[in-house]
Amino acid sequence: MSKVPATINEKVILGVDPGTSVMGYGVICVTGSKFKLLQYGVIHLKKYPNHEIKLKKIFERVTGLIKDYAPDEVAIEAPFYGKNIQSMLKLGRAQGVAMAAALSHQIPIVEYAPKKVKMSVTGNGNASKEQVAYMLAGLLSFNVADKLMDATDALAVAVCHHFQGGKSQVQSKSWASFIKKNPHRIK
Amino acid sequence: MSKVPATINEKVILGVDPGTSVMGYGVICVTGSKFKLLQYGVIHLKKYPNHEIKLKKIFERVTGLIKDYAPDEVAIEAPFYGKNIQSMLKLGRAQGVAMAAALSHQIPIVEYAPKKVKMSVTGNGNASKEQVAYMLAGLLSFNVADKLMDATDALAVAVCHHFQGGKSQVQSKSWASFIKKNPHRIK
Repeated sequence: MSKVPATINEKVILGVDPGTSVMGYGVICVTGSKFKLLQYGVIHLKKYPNHEIKLKKIFERVTGLIKDYAPDEVAIEAPFYGKNIQSMLKLGRAQGVAMAAALSHQIPIVEYAPKKVKMSVTGNGNASKEQVAYMLAGLLSFNVADKLMDATDALAVAVCHHFQGGKSQVQSKSWASFIKKNPHRIK
Repeated sequence: MSKVPATINEKVILGVDPGTSVMGYGVICVTGSKFKLLQYGVIHLKKYPNHEIKLKKIFERVTGLIKDYAPDEVAIEAPFYGKNIQSMLKLGRAQGVAMAAALSHQIPIVEYAPKKVKMSVTGNGNASKEQVAYMLAGLLSFNVADKLMDATDALAVAVCHHFQGGKSQVQSKSWASFIKKNPHRIK
């Protein structure tokens, strides 16, 4: 029997949950089936006086995380629907600047809808935020009592991305399937 | 009488009209009351297979224009309304990546609603695209028969920005006034 060489198949994933009032982020490192939490946090955007500064802060933080952790892939939690047209424009901009930070560093981006993230992490697409946090605490070895609730979705999308095998075509597939199912909603 | 010193008050403005099927752009140089057309063009985004590549192309082109022309300010044509929620999310992303390119180079961005642009350039907020093109042809000394129709809005927003005195608070004002007038539309 030949000796199996030790292969280091390490992957760093940056998860981002870009919102218009809070942006959550989380960086995980996955080696085989082992997860390691490298960094997580939030930017509270409400404190900034205007929309432009908020976008600038999102761009700077995502760029900073990319420089610090050199992620192999970026996973974004991206709802396809929202409450109204105005909030979707603002959300789209927040997503856009976060994505631009990754695009400008040639890092592949994958988007996941919130239900997909919950399903992937907990097995239930309608899981509560607390249930998601509980599962993440086990996987990433942190105390569920830690106040990372706003970063939960960002960490969850990073973990989801790993479980999904990091297939970067997921985004275009889901977008394409949305368009296919809702041709009247696309101008 | 003391001699008035010759002052060169030159300003380069990049106008961007980020859409989801076509992105128009135009670079103008304004010296006193004289306009000079430096560059204009469009990216036809429909030819790219997925949304991520479209956003990447927008980011790259805007970044390229910033590197080539070092604009002092970036003016963006930004509708506040759209046909539906899904198209506004896509439009928001397109705007977001264009804005991120400017933000990453510390260049101020000012947004103008389409009506404001038309009003500023032609004196009529409901002017047709042809009327806008005709006024621009006079100001920027190009032949109106040139096929720049898709870049018209981008050039118009750059000219509008100059006429508005480049007040960078226009964006936040118009956003704030929108919210004030439409509190129910903001989540």
